[in-house]
Amino acid sequence: MRSLPRCVPTIVLGLLLFRAARAAEPFPQAALDQARVIRERALSDDVGYDLLRSLTTEVGPRSAGSPGDARAVAWALAHLRALGFKNVRAESVTVSHWIRGEAQAEITAPWPQPLLPVALGGSGATPPPGIEADVVPVTTLAELATLPAGAVKGRIVFFTQRMQRTHDGAGYGTAVAVRGTGALESSKLGAVAVVIRSIGTDSNRLAHTGAMRIADTVRTIPALALSNPDADLLENELASGQPVRIRMRNTSMWGDSARSANVVGEIPGATKASEIVLLGAHLDSWDLGTGAHDDGAGVATITAAARLIGAARVAPARTVRVVLYANEEHGGQGSRGYIKRHGEEIARHVMGMESDLGAFPVLGVASRVPPDRLPVARAMAALLAPWGVPYVGNEAGGGSDVGPLGELGVPLIDVHTDAAPYFDLHHTANDTFDKIDPALLRQNIGAFATLAYLAAQYPGDFGRAMKPKPAR
Amino acid sequence: MRSLPRCVPTIVLGLLLFRAARAAEPFPQAALDQARVIRERALSDDVGYDLLRSLTTEVGPRSAGSPGDARAVAWALAHLRALGFKNVRAESVTVSHWIRGEAQAEITAPWPQPLLPVALGGSGATPPPGIEADVVPVTTLAELATLPAGAVKGRIVFFTQRMQRTHDGAGYGTAVAVRGTGALESSKLGAVAVVIRSIGTDSNRLAHTGAMRIADTVRTIPALALSNPDADLLENELASGQPVRIRMRNTSMWGDSARSANVVGEIPGATKASEIVLLGAHLDSWDLGTGAHDDGAGVATITAAARLIGAARVAPARTVRVVLYANEEHGGQGSRGYIKRHGEEIARHVMGMESDLGAFPVLGVASRVPPDRLPVARAMAALLAPWGVPYVGNEAGGGSDVGPLGELGVPLIDVHTDAAPYFDLHHTANDTFDKIDPALLRQNIGAFATLAYLAAQYPGDFGRAMKPKPAR
Repeated sequence: MRSLPRCVPTIVLGLLLFRAARAAEPFPQAALDQARVIRERALSDDVGYDLLRSLTTEVGPRSAGSPGDARAVAWALAHLRALGFKNVRAESVTVSHWIRGEAQAEITAPWPQPLLPVALGGSGATPPPGIEADVVPVTTLAELATLPAGAVKGRIVFFTQRMQRTHDGAGYGTAVAVRGTGALESSKLGAVAVVIRSIGTDSNRLAHTGAMRIADTVRTIPALALSNPDADLLENELASGQPVRIRMRNTSMWGDSARSANVVGEIPGATKASEIVLLGAHLDSWDLGTGAHDDGAGVATITAAARLIGAARVAPARTVRVVLYANEEHGGQGSRGYIKRHGEEIARHVMGMESDLGAFPVLGVASRVPPDRLPVARAMAALLAPWGVPYVGNEAGGGSDVGPLGELGVPLIDVHTDAAPYFDLHHTANDTFDKIDPALLRQNIGAFATLAYLAAQYPGDFGRAMKPKPAR
Repeated sequence: MRSLPRCVPTIVLGLLLFRAARAAEPFPQAALDQARVIRERALSDDVGYDLLRSLTTEVGPRSAGSPGDARAVAWALAHLRALGFKNVRAESVTVSHWIRGEAQAEITAPWPQPLLPVALGGSGATPPPGIEADVVPVTTLAELATLPAGAVKGRIVFFTQRMQRTHDGAGYGTAVAVRGTGALESSKLGAVAVVIRSIGTDSNRLAHTGAMRIADTVRTIPALALSNPDADLLENELASGQPVRIRMRNTSMWGDSARSANVVGEIPGATKASEIVLLGAHLDSWDLGTGAHDDGAGVATITAAARLIGAARVAPARTVRVVLYANEEHGGQGSRGYIKRHGEEIARHVMGMESDLGAFPVLGVASRVPPDRLPVARAMAALLAPWGVPYVGNEAGGGSDVGPLGELGVPLIDVHTDAAPYFDLHHTANDTFDKIDPALLRQNIGAFATLAYLAAQYPGDFGRAMKPKPAR
């Protein structure tokens, strides 16, 4: 008689809240149960690891327009078919074809020392005998802009900025501008070449390549990346206060544009087959390594994830489409080509996800959905909570390939992975299969499979994530 | 009245033991006090680090007979003099001169892939257009010996053995035989070339060079080292069961013998100047890196240690002699030349110490002294006990340069350092100054300075450590 009257309102309130929570749960119990089964299966499934071994061993380097690129397209078609994907096809894309050639550089004064450079993608060649010039160090583009007129004319600009090692990749975002436009801006000021401290965070004697911008109106000068140890050495020579000279030779050139393709395969939806959950990764790689993390890991992740969805007892309502993009690294023609080809269909893309940060530990899940769909995104991410993976917000952006779909309003889910080890390897000869931890690859596959399955099963409509921008 | 009678015997016994311990202490208190001062000074002294930056920046690669070798000799003479060493001199040594040239290799079947090889020191060249042949994998020399006659004739032998990563360097001792005689033994069986998995423990795409044996009676075939990632790739191709072919080209050659030198400097002894405590390291390096750990760290360690001894308030009784040996890496002429030149004087070498395992954490101190001098060795090592460094036994062996003095009966002290990180870098392009931890370099310097000072101050006679073997 004493406790009951005080308990009753609490119990009633609890029941009401429980019912409200039930009502707010966006997914049927069967979908959640099936998603959990997929999640667990991923952790003992080696399809992804075997695919990645196959791609790195049997294809290897596959830069756009190279023989490896063509082999990669054939490899992808064969493997998607063998894994039971439907509507497997190569959607032709014309790609630019830059040819690395050979790069050599050495410090000639004050103390002669060999360097181990790599050309940036798009670098100009030196005259055949090479060039030799004094070095002008600057930290960043901002410092370059402050130099007096003529300061770099006839000289080699050395960008000394060091990329910071961060788990979220912010260090890359800050540093990469030097790679993008360092040569262009230096050329405008009359420099004969640039060398940059690699956009990378390791201390190995392996420089990081990557794309640089060129412009029709500005002479494209040679642009070489130096490893961190070589950049340290060059800074130590500069610290002497004596003039420092570099001799370099580079034979990069542009080949003819080439045919490549976005390779597409589907797990058809059972009830809403015209609505598409798109999983993207890029099939091309830089030429220095075998593209194991960048982006073989992405190819393996989305392919193995989609296959797990295709093998589920409860088929997905929507179609899960795997798109292996052409030439992400040095032109982006695959991403633009996809949007152009599928223009009418973009409105039926209900969700986009991209894997292009390697097979490293999954740190979080982000969404980009209309505000009223946030509970749906949170409910999706909640399935990774048992792994200690949090939902981190509604600022997902996709990557280079799927990001442009986001700009057209397609909702996005990002799986954030640890970017710190990624940028130790990124765009170097070290990006090889031995660096793949199979357990971490399985975790990535599990995250993609779980989230993509739920996106395909969500009974409602994700809407459009933002006001669409005009297509690029 | 009750306690006094029971205490007296205890006190008397204690005093007797204390006197006995004092009697057994091999070093005067003043020597121990001064040694401790030296030990502590080393931890805030940057002479060694500055020397190493200078050597790696201003000289860089310095393989025997190369222009860098001659620069290194001049550098060493200048720096020993500038640091106040006495009797600084270059003791001429004739060294062999192997010229690396260029090495290229690629897998041509079943799946074409580029490799990033380096030639082993002493490798033969290919014919100018290169060679292409099937690959025969074997783990070790022992397995090679079991193959049926003709199994490797006309083929390329691939030694797949993987070096184990150990703190005591045992993995190197086991693995290195393949590098030493793999090509020689394969050539005897008719192989056209060998490739070996690098004798190294890292996973970087940087192969490890090192000396191989050649013989007048056996054709010297091309011998290339592959990084662990490249060896993994080659094994993955072999796992297909299909014939695997490699194409390679190598232009190594022997140059004329060249003049180099052991560079010597001394801290003269105050009272027993004719007795010598020898500190050895090698001045040459392989050509791929700047020889920061191998053996710039040794050069810096023993030079800075001897200088600390020279700056001590209580001068050493014996002479501390620094010997920077020529061509340890590829001929050992410096070590042999020293013994030949100093034959009569070897009997007055009371102790030898060598630094040639990089500037990594000090793990222990070993001696090689006559059994009745073990208390002396233990008392010396005890000064490093506050760093947690134990005395580990009487099995010291010196290194390649000082070890031969041990074989002539000269007592030795070894400072054991962590060999695990050393063999990640050893003989690769990655052996550069940025890999030096200044605190660990200071610890090495402190260990050498403390132990060498005590060896120079020991009032007794160390005797001969073992029955001398005939000089080599």
